[in-house]
Amino acid sequence: MPDATPTTGLELRSLIKKNGELELSLAKVPVPEPADDQVVVKVEATPINPSDLGLLLGPADMKNAAASGSGEGIVVKAKVPEASLPLLAARLDQPMPVGNEGAGTVVKAGKSDEAQALKGKIVSMIGGAMYAQYRLIKARDCQALPSGTTAAEGASWFVNPLTALGMTETMKREGHKALVHTAAASNLGQMLNRICLEDGIGLVNIVRSPAQAKILRDAGAKQVCDSTEAGFTGKLAQALAETGATIAFDAIGGGRLASQILACMEMAITRSASDYSRYGSSVHKQVYIYGSLDPGPVELVRNYGMAWGVGGWLLTPFLQKIGRADQQRLRERVARSLKTTFASHYTRTISLPEALRLENIALYSKRATGEKFLINPNKAG
Amino acid sequence: MPDATPTTGLELRSLIKKNGELELSLAKVPVPEPADDQVVVKVEATPINPSDLGLLLGPADMKNAAASGSGEGIVVKAKVPEASLPLLAARLDQPMPVGNEGAGTVVKAGKSDEAQALKGKIVSMIGGAMYAQYRLIKARDCQALPSGTTAAEGASWFVNPLTALGMTETMKREGHKALVHTAAASNLGQMLNRICLEDGIGLVNIVRSPAQAKILRDAGAKQVCDSTEAGFTGKLAQALAETGATIAFDAIGGGRLASQILACMEMAITRSASDYSRYGSSVHKQVYIYGSLDPGPVELVRNYGMAWGVGGWLLTPFLQKIGRADQQRLRERVARSLKTTFASHYTRTISLPEALRLENIALYSKRATGEKFLINPNKAG
Repeated sequence: MPDATPTTGLELRSLIKKNGELELSLAKVPVPEPADDQVVVKVEATPINPSDLGLLLGPADMKNAAASGSGEGIVVKAKVPEASLPLLAARLDQPMPVGNEGAGTVVKAGKSDEAQALKGKIVSMIGGAMYAQYRLIKARDCQALPSGTTAAEGASWFVNPLTALGMTETMKREGHKALVHTAAASNLGQMLNRICLEDGIGLVNIVRSPAQAKILRDAGAKQVCDSTEAGFTGKLAQALAETGATIAFDAIGGGRLASQILACMEMAITRSASDYSRYGSSVHKQVYIYGSLDPGPVELVRNYGMAWGVGGWLLTPFLQKIGRADQQRLRERVARSLKTTFASHYTRTISLPEALRLENIALYSKRATGEKFLINPNKAG
Repeated sequence: MPDATPTTGLELRSLIKKNGELELSLAKVPVPEPADDQVVVKVEATPINPSDLGLLLGPADMKNAAASGSGEGIVVKAKVPEASLPLLAARLDQPMPVGNEGAGTVVKAGKSDEAQALKGKIVSMIGGAMYAQYRLIKARDCQALPSGTTAAEGASWFVNPLTALGMTETMKREGHKALVHTAAASNLGQMLNRICLEDGIGLVNIVRSPAQAKILRDAGAKQVCDSTEAGFTGKLAQALAETGATIAFDAIGGGRLASQILACMEMAITRSASDYSRYGSSVHKQVYIYGSLDPGPVELVRNYGMAWGVGGWLLTPFLQKIGRADQQRLRERVARSLKTTFASHYTRTISLPEALRLENIALYSKRATGEKFLINPNKAG
């Protein structure tokens, strides 16, 4: 079989310059030859996750971004606020490849048995630089997909599924018996709902519209609270009392929602309390903020005693903490149910040049539930 | 020796009624006879700590409080906002005795050797209901003071000393090497400064005036940052870089100080970082809020990556967590240095009726660094 792979491929680059200018472009890079234990994957599907936007766009002001050039030559420029630059010191003036996860076909394989075994297979990958036509990667870092699974079906195999599983695992490890999720109609939220239904775990879904509430109720969710509805906090406290949830995972961040959740948890707990404690209940209430749909400040009103915590939650440190054996257990569960429990849904599939078009950036940078983009770097356009 | 103890004594009571009215008064209660393992202590010194105010005043609006009666018959009334009542359910319509800690002379002792050994001795106590002329307590819950130590010197033997020691212990247990303290010129803050100097622990003191900065510098503090000074965050980041502090104990709560501390910690860490991470540094940064000098909302700006936590910190759960042996070790350290490292200073000593005078309540309920009241329940007035 002659090698039909071209000698160069496109790779998306995000550069923040010392002067505060963000520049997005497509670099033409050589397609490398794999070492013995490596393969080259033709990337056919890679999602734009909220977790990719931090590296892709940084804190740049995308509302005033400008594009020039066309097709593969497109270049987007935007301004990063000066106050953010000190925190970006380590990436300044370095073009960064982007894209946490993806899937595609192995088109070149090194000499090792492990690499050769993957030749022609569709595999999923994690590790960055997936917004590229070709990705060099170690064979052992690829996950071969079950036959009949497409690259598009396997593209979001890692971040969302393991984040959702990470939430129920964290809940158990920290001694809670049920959990709360916000922005719960997202792809991730629907996945978490399916996991909790399968595992018999109490889940309180908080959404921000009647349409989102319907998505979850149609998917069998038992507890759905719409924060835009009158009497929201009363209904939330009731759902918390029924499930006993004392830990929440919040994708929104800014505003008072985290504080409301803690207050409603305390209300649900003290409702059944017999002794008064001047410091509130002694039951620890926890909110982990894992996203930032609202980048404004988190406001904590603290009307819930002293036994509370709010903090950042991130997948990678969680996986490091649980160790290799437990990671493997979670990964295998995902691979088994990629078309059911862990299925993702995309609203559109775009090419690399399309990923840099301002009208598309405006949509995916909104971080709004409802829009979900998949890039096919080998799609023409 | 004839028993000169009267048959009744005064006890301060805080009552929040179901209708939202707070009522403070002095009840005349019988002085009980001790059981075999108990003693009766004539309370001669008991501090008004910020940690007493929650039970004493609750969330009542003290600015519009009214007093009636005089002397022992004084009664103070104030209004609790209706929104707070659900959280107070367990104390409504129950008169609560107040006062966490105190010291005095053992005037009656039960038959056991342990109780008899304390007769006539000056002891320190913890356990509530100390704003009273006489306190019945188990002999083993009393700490006999070294001879030459007065009740006033031993009154604040528990809450502030063990809270300050709890901070350095928590720092070590959670893997940090230096710490930050806010409202650092308080009695507690000065104590923490002396502990850190003794133990060679890096401490960054944050204060809110040049006068407070001077108090700490005169006491030998190495790192003092005045948040009212120009260039505060730059100086704070520098102090954090020099000490390596990644945990803070915050007495203030409301506002952006906790967030500023986390941002300055991140700045100090990334200053020396070689690799860029889109999620900020992987070093966990923690702020524990243990007080509420500003009862407004905590605002978290989140310009410090994902490895952060903010939470409530309280002495009692901390002591429960470390267990009896470690508690004993900390208590003994306090007893050894009550006149030096763990000395408290009071701005005035008042009687029980004086504790209910509106002009005094206005001062001690301000929760401001600088004023510190000691009650002597057996002082005339």
